[in-house]
Amino acid sequence: MEGDPALRLRVFDLNCWAIRYLSKRRQERIQLIGDMLRQEDFDLVLLQEVWSERDYSDLKVKLRGCYPFSHYFRSGVIGSGLCVFSRFPILDTLLYQYSLNGYPYMLQHGDWFCGKSVGLVIIKISGIESASLLPCSHQLHAEYCREKDAYLPHRLVQAWELAQFIRHTSKAADVVLLGGDLNMHPEDVGIQLLRGWTGLRDAFAEATHFEGCEDGCTLVPNNCFTDKSELLPFPLGIRIDYILYKAISRFMVKCEELKTTTGTAPGTDVPFSDHEAVMATLHIQKQGQAGGATLTTAEPMLADVVTEARTEVGVGLRAAQQQCSSSGRMALLALLLLLLQAMAALGALAGLDAGQPFPKLSFCLLAFLAIGILLLATGLHLFHTMEVKMLQSTEEQMWMVLRTLQEHP
Amino acid sequence: MEGDPALRLRVFDLNCWAIRYLSKRRQERIQLIGDMLRQEDFDLVLLQEVWSERDYSDLKVKLRGCYPFSHYFRSGVIGSGLCVFSRFPILDTLLYQYSLNGYPYMLQHGDWFCGKSVGLVIIKISGIESASLLPCSHQLHAEYCREKDAYLPHRLVQAWELAQFIRHTSKAADVVLLGGDLNMHPEDVGIQLLRGWTGLRDAFAEATHFEGCEDGCTLVPNNCFTDKSELLPFPLGIRIDYILYKAISRFMVKCEELKTTTGTAPGTDVPFSDHEAVMATLHIQKQGQAGGATLTTAEPMLADVVTEARTEVGVGLRAAQQQCSSSGRMALLALLLLLLQAMAALGALAGLDAGQPFPKLSFCLLAFLAIGILLLATGLHLFHTMEVKMLQSTEEQMWMVLRTLQEHP
Repeated sequence: MEGDPALRLRVFDLNCWAIRYLSKRRQERIQLIGDMLRQEDFDLVLLQEVWSERDYSDLKVKLRGCYPFSHYFRSGVIGSGLCVFSRFPILDTLLYQYSLNGYPYMLQHGDWFCGKSVGLVIIKISGIESASLLPCSHQLHAEYCREKDAYLPHRLVQAWELAQFIRHTSKAADVVLLGGDLNMHPEDVGIQLLRGWTGLRDAFAEATHFEGCEDGCTLVPNNCFTDKSELLPFPLGIRIDYILYKAISRFMVKCEELKTTTGTAPGTDVPFSDHEAVMATLHIQKQGQAGGATLTTAEPMLADVVTEARTEVGVGLRAAQQQCSSSGRMALLALLLLLLQAMAALGALAGLDAGQPFPKLSFCLLAFLAIGILLLATGLHLFHTMEVKMLQSTEEQMWMVLRTLQEHP
Repeated sequence: MEGDPALRLRVFDLNCWAIRYLSKRRQERIQLIGDMLRQEDFDLVLLQEVWSERDYSDLKVKLRGCYPFSHYFRSGVIGSGLCVFSRFPILDTLLYQYSLNGYPYMLQHGDWFCGKSVGLVIIKISGIESASLLPCSHQLHAEYCREKDAYLPHRLVQAWELAQFIRHTSKAADVVLLGGDLNMHPEDVGIQLLRGWTGLRDAFAEATHFEGCEDGCTLVPNNCFTDKSELLPFPLGIRIDYILYKAISRFMVKCEELKTTTGTAPGTDVPFSDHEAVMATLHIQKQGQAGGATLTTAEPMLADVVTEARTEVGVGLRAAQQQCSSSGRMALLALLLLLLQAMAALGALAGLDAGQPFPKLSFCLLAFLAIGILLLATGLHLFHTMEVKMLQSTEEQMWMVLRTLQEHP
């Protein structure tokens, strides 16, 4: 370690809750976030839920001086909401859109329309030789009801895809950073899976010094924008925003300090967002020997986690298969009805039953209803077919990993 | 190079054209392909357009003895059609689905339903130290009309995403292999982009010894399954199936031999597919110094290629923006018509114009028509909004690369 350059990297992560027309006091909060970022002078800023490109452009203009490099990830109908600001040059970017992300017909949740993704940014920091950083700012599908969580299989598929994406894209990096709203509690199987399968460490658990909301919570009842009823079972709040990290090659990373914001922005009565921000100070240093043995110690536990995740994915798979076949049956019935109507209409035209003509209006209404149901059911059937394929694929991949873990314990 | 182990790797690539109910003599050809693969004993087999999972399972059972490891990539409604058979253990897999892939309403082309993707397989070969191979078996959007190619921007986005995916996932690999039907001629901008931006080399151009169809063509008029009228401007046929490769770290790869099939399978009157298969023998050897300087020599040309690709993507972007706004306008008009009808119906109910009652049937028909147009136009608008976002994102990324190329010539 003699004389090797060391780096202190300050990372900021926040789910900004900046949905146009829906989020309260959005523009004011974006202003406040920009002001604070300009004052604080972080090295790397990972923002989520910046759904409006104009908000991003405003931030970009404001932060040009202290964060000259930035990237906005576009995806889905509304956008991914992800953006990164950096003091160091961004060399390259890549977006990976999760294969499953809720249902298009669940309009009230809207996750499907966001095209939720993980964004990869490669940053080279002079001072440390070839230290490529891969901060993935991202967000997984929201949890709307913890007791009866219909989206759990989708979130697990996303956690798995995220882990696989990190593993495959970070092999040549020196340091990997992942910051974002994972919509999962620290003890949830999805987080265990992500951490176990990538070897990423939780900055909150590893920090030498911590300051902020109790238990590192990032969704707290004190925040005036949070839904109090949702947090009733958790009087302290919940921790769903994370900064995770690992060193891969000749580097060593330690989390020196972790902070969260606690309530309103300084000098105002408004918090930055409905989430609290997470801020980590990481100490990165070159070391003699190559690291990377993080996985081995956790492997016996990892097998249990993968097994549990696979079971949940299996539950989702059976539900999707059921929806797939019931929508298929519905489409067939509608088609049958249409065929019957077509036969009746042809019969009427040929004068076979001219004595008892159909009431034209009801006949037309019934035909339109049948066409509507046919189109809807076919759409649903196609959608659930894709869902089944992706769940099967994840289940299979997990099984492959389990087999490998069992063969090489 | 003294005493370092060398490896001779035999790779097979074929677009199998195995679409259930549509492809001629499908089962017979799958049988023939299986028999030939069992006899020939390749190391790595990359197959495309195996759309039926049953065909894959049949092949898997048949090839269990000589290719004990295999993987089938699931995606989209129909599947990705990609599968890999290998003599060496498959350690890990990853599927990346292209963000753009044609239009769901172009039912006659059907590309959108296939969920076209690139599949990554990591293979470790004993004998050569940590030689990870990344064969990506994949296929890009088909070209239906070369003169007026409406899918060119989508294919370029796919070529770009493929190149980015390869760059990001192959950093730690020793050897990268890409085999598949790229639906592009060797001189097309998409191929130049892919090769220039990844540094992959074309086995046909590099092979010491070649045997097969003239000019390495893989879609030839002699094949009884090809559409002769499409190949009229190309009397020899076209070359759209490739095996590309590069060595990244301490390895060196040479293509010793490249072959294509030429017509019918031995002892029968039926070819294996409408495409010819490509077979490469690669010689992989450890070398003293690290390679990887493939990009630098081609960079001035690369800037031209990226500029050309970006122009084409820009053309696609403007078309998508136009479709986006016209579908939006159409949706608005349909909504307006519905509102007018609702007002008229309310007026009629309130007895305001009881003297001139609407003909109920036409009224209902008109309402259903308006609802139909509203739904369709909204769907189209959402789809084209996503398309615009992805085209913008690719254009931006290409611009970033151009800037980097200009700054560091």
